[in-house]
Amino acid sequence: MSVTAAQGFDASGVKAGLKASGGLDLALVVNRGPLANAAAVFTSNRALANPIIWSKQVIADGTVSAIVLNSGGANCFTGAQGFQVTHSTAEAVGAALDVSAGDVLVCSTGLIGEQLPLEKLLPAITEAAASLGDHGDDASRAIMTTDSRPKVSVRHGSGYTVGGMAKGAGMLAPGLATMLVVITTDVVLSSAELDIALRKATRVSFDRLDSDGCMSTNDQVSLLASGASGVEPQLAAFTAVLTEVCLDLAEQLQGDAEGSSHDIRIEVVGAETEDDAVEVGRSIARNNLFKAAIFGNDPNWGRVLAAIGTTDAEFDPYDVDVSMNGVRVCHLGAPDRPRTDVDLTPRKVDLLLDLKSGSATATILTNDLTHDYVHENSAYSS
Amino acid sequence: MSVTAAQGFDASGVKAGLKASGGLDLALVVNRGPLANAAAVFTSNRALANPIIWSKQVIADGTVSAIVLNSGGANCFTGAQGFQVTHSTAEAVGAALDVSAGDVLVCSTGLIGEQLPLEKLLPAITEAAASLGDHGDDASRAIMTTDSRPKVSVRHGSGYTVGGMAKGAGMLAPGLATMLVVITTDVVLSSAELDIALRKATRVSFDRLDSDGCMSTNDQVSLLASGASGVEPQLAAFTAVLTEVCLDLAEQLQGDAEGSSHDIRIEVVGAETEDDAVEVGRSIARNNLFKAAIFGNDPNWGRVLAAIGTTDAEFDPYDVDVSMNGVRVCHLGAPDRPRTDVDLTPRKVDLLLDLKSGSATATILTNDLTHDYVHENSAYSS
Repeated sequence: MSVTAAQGFDASGVKAGLKASGGLDLALVVNRGPLANAAAVFTSNRALANPIIWSKQVIADGTVSAIVLNSGGANCFTGAQGFQVTHSTAEAVGAALDVSAGDVLVCSTGLIGEQLPLEKLLPAITEAAASLGDHGDDASRAIMTTDSRPKVSVRHGSGYTVGGMAKGAGMLAPGLATMLVVITTDVVLSSAELDIALRKATRVSFDRLDSDGCMSTNDQVSLLASGASGVEPQLAAFTAVLTEVCLDLAEQLQGDAEGSSHDIRIEVVGAETEDDAVEVGRSIARNNLFKAAIFGNDPNWGRVLAAIGTTDAEFDPYDVDVSMNGVRVCHLGAPDRPRTDVDLTPRKVDLLLDLKSGSATATILTNDLTHDYVHENSAYSS
Repeated sequence: MSVTAAQGFDASGVKAGLKASGGLDLALVVNRGPLANAAAVFTSNRALANPIIWSKQVIADGTVSAIVLNSGGANCFTGAQGFQVTHSTAEAVGAALDVSAGDVLVCSTGLIGEQLPLEKLLPAITEAAASLGDHGDDASRAIMTTDSRPKVSVRHGSGYTVGGMAKGAGMLAPGLATMLVVITTDVVLSSAELDIALRKATRVSFDRLDSDGCMSTNDQVSLLASGASGVEPQLAAFTAVLTEVCLDLAEQLQGDAEGSSHDIRIEVVGAETEDDAVEVGRSIARNNLFKAAIFGNDPNWGRVLAAIGTTDAEFDPYDVDVSMNGVRVCHLGAPDRPRTDVDLTPRKVDLLLDLKSGSATATILTNDLTHDYVHENSAYSS
């Protein structure tokens, strides 16, 4: 299901031979219409992979007929040859589907700095086009890299459907993550409306997932609308359903983050502004000492305060409260209930931080720093 | 030697019983004069430990007679009781040495959020005052926490000496590190001159050491001058000698960083401004994926470019060169010599990054991200 849950979409997943494991590694999602409206958001990293450079041009007119995605290589920092591979990929998809190459989004994920073999991509595209159908599950598997499982989500609005797939397990940070996401829907909305909805939804979901502080060169979240349901929803109602799908996928990404043993939900309340709440939450999510402590089931709240002290947010460090899994361990910047009252053995960790400076809030999702994270990321390219 | 290498200083190191290990944990350094000029720089973290709040008041008039340092507890986020402990510590030192408590700097290091037991500190201060002498080595051992060895350094100028000791192994980041440093000298310079020299020296040494991106609440670097040599050096010449001591200590801190297996020297050249070079170097030093790759002896230069792409520095990602241990693996943002030509088995790793945007340079020192780092920091407070 996932990207084929909404009416008007076909998908497939095939083996191009890019992955050493020999698994599915090329996915194709096609919008059969009647509309071909779309929106997309991209990594804010200045170091952009070739498929991002290409896709930014494709999305400019808000029209997308298909999206092709590969794992097994990021096609980033691969020079003019690398861009040509992306371009040829889009042209091959366009020829196979009889659509314009300029309406084909391209996504790649994998190692940076290695060429993608076009001679493997081209026959796989032909095969993927020939096997299109209700194969959202194959597509969701073909985009996996170090993911241990596919991530899919489907929600229904009044007479319409929103479904999506995501991959990403490391380099999870704002401005998105090493994350490819494709969301399809059968609503009747313009590209401009889709863009508004997508930016609102990602701002409070994928943009607040910060697993390891590292920002990818290849992130892309695409939203394709076929109009096949004939339903034209209120934008706010559609945005709410879309946000549910994005949050569900973001939490699945968090739950499968490389080597993680805890899913940490950092809820910042009492902030003067939402930006302050996000900055404070992110400073904790990026503090290796805090993250290692959680791995060790150690409620080391001093590291929380040391982390937030590096921000410019409005608060007095000696006026904040910190709770972990419901136990207030710090009150007004001083010890409160004993650390030993906190049970950090469950995978889910709730950190609540009250800045006492206003009424704004934000929630950041992160993971702990573990032996397995170090292991996976020291061995990834070898 | 170290802090007692320069004329006019005595030191001692004793056991107060603060450390679970039972080792030396309280150090005292006394300036016998004739001058008592001093300067100090502190963590830029807004979450300040009680000894930092105290010491900032002490240094305001540029006069320091003694400095007392303890390991085994940071005395940070310990409320009014914690500040009273710091105050009483300074008063006890003042009484024992017959100097003003207002001329006694206090430093603490260890776990945040736990009270320091004054009943253990007071008899130890009496013992430390009674055993003062040429015991810089004991002092340098008493300030160790997870350090595996003491860090000391001595350099000589024309007729004068600069010597220092340092501790710090985790939370090593700019605006200093979990780092306590005491440097003594027998020159005749005013407190204002010492302040200028110290800020220049720390800016290119301790401030450019970023082992794990985490900023401490307790960092302090103090410079005490006795004037006992009678030599009044040129400020520039003195600053050069002082900088050598600071760099030597910073490299010792890097070499003993918690759990590290590589010392990574990130040299950024061709930057438009020095600030740009520092920002770019620091973005690499804080990238967990890059640091984990180095642990795995993997010259994953794509992660270098992904890291620097998150900065606002002036450069074109598709115009930069990256060399690792002398092998240029990336030229103009594309693959150059093969990764397999790079030997990352030695502890020392040199990363050279040419931004091609100007003539400014900066060097940042960091470490890899290892299993042992995670282990030490997941088990530290338990």
